[in-house]
Amino acid sequence: MANKVKLNDSNSTRVPAGDLQKQLLSIFQGVGTPEHHAEIAAKVLVSASVRGVDTHGVANVVGYSQAIENGVYTIPQQTKVITESETTALVSGGNGIGLVSAYEGMEIAIEKAKNYGLGMVSIRDGHHVGMVAYYAMMALEHNMIGMSMTTAAPAVRPALGARKMLGTNPIGFAAPAGAERDFVLDMATSTVASGKVGLARRLGVPIPEGWAVTNEGKAITDPPDGENDTWSLNPLGNTREQGSHKGYGLAMMVDILCGVLSGGGFSSQLARGENMSWVMAIDIARFRDVDDFKAMMDDMIGELHATPPMPGEDRVLVAGDPEADAMDDRLANGVPVENGQYAAIKARAAEVSVEILI
Amino acid sequence: MANKVKLNDSNSTRVPAGDLQKQLLSIFQGVGTPEHHAEIAAKVLVSASVRGVDTHGVANVVGYSQAIENGVYTIPQQTKVITESETTALVSGGNGIGLVSAYEGMEIAIEKAKNYGLGMVSIRDGHHVGMVAYYAMMALEHNMIGMSMTTAAPAVRPALGARKMLGTNPIGFAAPAGAERDFVLDMATSTVASGKVGLARRLGVPIPEGWAVTNEGKAITDPPDGENDTWSLNPLGNTREQGSHKGYGLAMMVDILCGVLSGGGFSSQLARGENMSWVMAIDIARFRDVDDFKAMMDDMIGELHATPPMPGEDRVLVAGDPEADAMDDRLANGVPVENGQYAAIKARAAEVSVEILI
Repeated sequence: MANKVKLNDSNSTRVPAGDLQKQLLSIFQGVGTPEHHAEIAAKVLVSASVRGVDTHGVANVVGYSQAIENGVYTIPQQTKVITESETTALVSGGNGIGLVSAYEGMEIAIEKAKNYGLGMVSIRDGHHVGMVAYYAMMALEHNMIGMSMTTAAPAVRPALGARKMLGTNPIGFAAPAGAERDFVLDMATSTVASGKVGLARRLGVPIPEGWAVTNEGKAITDPPDGENDTWSLNPLGNTREQGSHKGYGLAMMVDILCGVLSGGGFSSQLARGENMSWVMAIDIARFRDVDDFKAMMDDMIGELHATPPMPGEDRVLVAGDPEADAMDDRLANGVPVENGQYAAIKARAAEVSVEILI
Repeated sequence: MANKVKLNDSNSTRVPAGDLQKQLLSIFQGVGTPEHHAEIAAKVLVSASVRGVDTHGVANVVGYSQAIENGVYTIPQQTKVITESETTALVSGGNGIGLVSAYEGMEIAIEKAKNYGLGMVSIRDGHHVGMVAYYAMMALEHNMIGMSMTTAAPAVRPALGARKMLGTNPIGFAAPAGAERDFVLDMATSTVASGKVGLARRLGVPIPEGWAVTNEGKAITDPPDGENDTWSLNPLGNTREQGSHKGYGLAMMVDILCGVLSGGGFSSQLARGENMSWVMAIDIARFRDVDDFKAMMDDMIGELHATPPMPGEDRVLVAGDPEADAMDDRLANGVPVENGQYAAIKARAAEVSVEILI
């Protein structure tokens, strides 16, 4: 079931990452986005596709560029610091492209961490930021640990609750390794991200019990056709006995750091398409020698990889492995774009009168 | 099953919190702990019992005081700063009482946050810190958000893995509310904390499927008699399909911040009883007006409480509610101490030649 929700040669078309970057850049520019912001937005979306996070990948250029045209996203946008201290900033994303606000917010956090060891930015007046781990990963090249979170309008029920009240409120966390691949965690605090239900629906496959429930508590296996108030995603843990209060608690933590600390509002105050975010950078060298840190990361990752797998499983993975595997494949062989989305991107390029490059 | 794992009038004895504080203080002092550290250790343990977190409560004075006598814990201890910057500190707990190292580590973090907005301390050479949220909660009276984590020797398998490799690696997070009760999350990154399996064993009740498995992947319902290499706790999420990589990923995040950033070592490098920790304080006023923050916290908590419950459930709770309810009851009516543990504390007081006060 869940593992059928995959792109393959019959439902997708492979496109070189560089071509996708050029096509997305041109579409964002085609609707008036300044070049440096169009570059950022394209880069974040292509990175998600390259890493196999297709739900947050290149196809989103269609909706984002429509939101720009409709005036839902304000461009040219400014990432404006409302208040700041040595280590902290409250930033307004100016209701622009969310990817750009989060990217520029993390640039601020990294700069503060360079100067004072830590940097933290809470971002209001924002939109969808895509693959949340992208911003955490920006810390890696600076030998920093990165952390990132984002909220969304309700899709997930609280533990014991029968209405969607929280966003899928994902958490990103990235820490650099040495010889091993970097540790990159990117997880919705619900059992699955909303995008996986949408993907299952488009591909016509059922979803496993435990992902979503009706307001009467009945498990849903036929992926619902769109958002409505009759069902919700489960928080990670699913049931009280199996820890649903933990996924729910993490979702509230994300709401507090992104929505309440910024003043932008918590999940149930947000309209669909509004997203508040939060990023942090930690300068490793303030604690210990960076090479020693990375060597210990390598040891940990190596030991986990060497753990005997459960019967029926190939091997034990570490967060970031599937994405790094996808990246190896996709940079070499092209990025698979779901056929419907491939056509939609080309149609969108034509619509905004830019050359079709894919 | 799970909800039978509760203290009641037939398996426990109620003792006033103040008497417990005095008794624990005297036992810690009885084995040579300096008074100000004995005060801290007693306070953290009594707080856990008062909040209903019995597995991390007063009974631990027996084992901790034995560890002091055996020389496993070094006293008098010093919380020594190895390296620091404006906002960060790497601290050695000097292999003393873990509760004291984490407490003093959080004091350092709060002080740094007062001066620079953020404070973060990674603590090596440490022991068991008890209820991890205690340290996050220390931020509340300073109008700060607190966060705390701690590692432990392996008890939990990685997703897809068949050996215990990670500690239960809990996360604490506390944020102040206004009229509502503060948000306090305290969660193991495993489906359940180890202590709950031990409690079920002592009370002679089965555990639910999903909490623990054999190395062959068979669900365990008869609580195992002690730690060994034939079984492990499940990471939060339990199965791949239901998100076990998320609980596992969070456990690694905790290992990175506590064990790798401090250099003290990650879970599978730790001996039983060794624990590395991490704390952070965030000064809310650097972002926005504290009263406005608290008012929005109240709105969020109020909306979640007002969510319609699932059929068969009473009401929707917020993290910290069960503990605050326990506190209301226990401060008024005394703290229930499991009968075997009640006897053990008194026996321990006699052993170290201090007056029995409970």
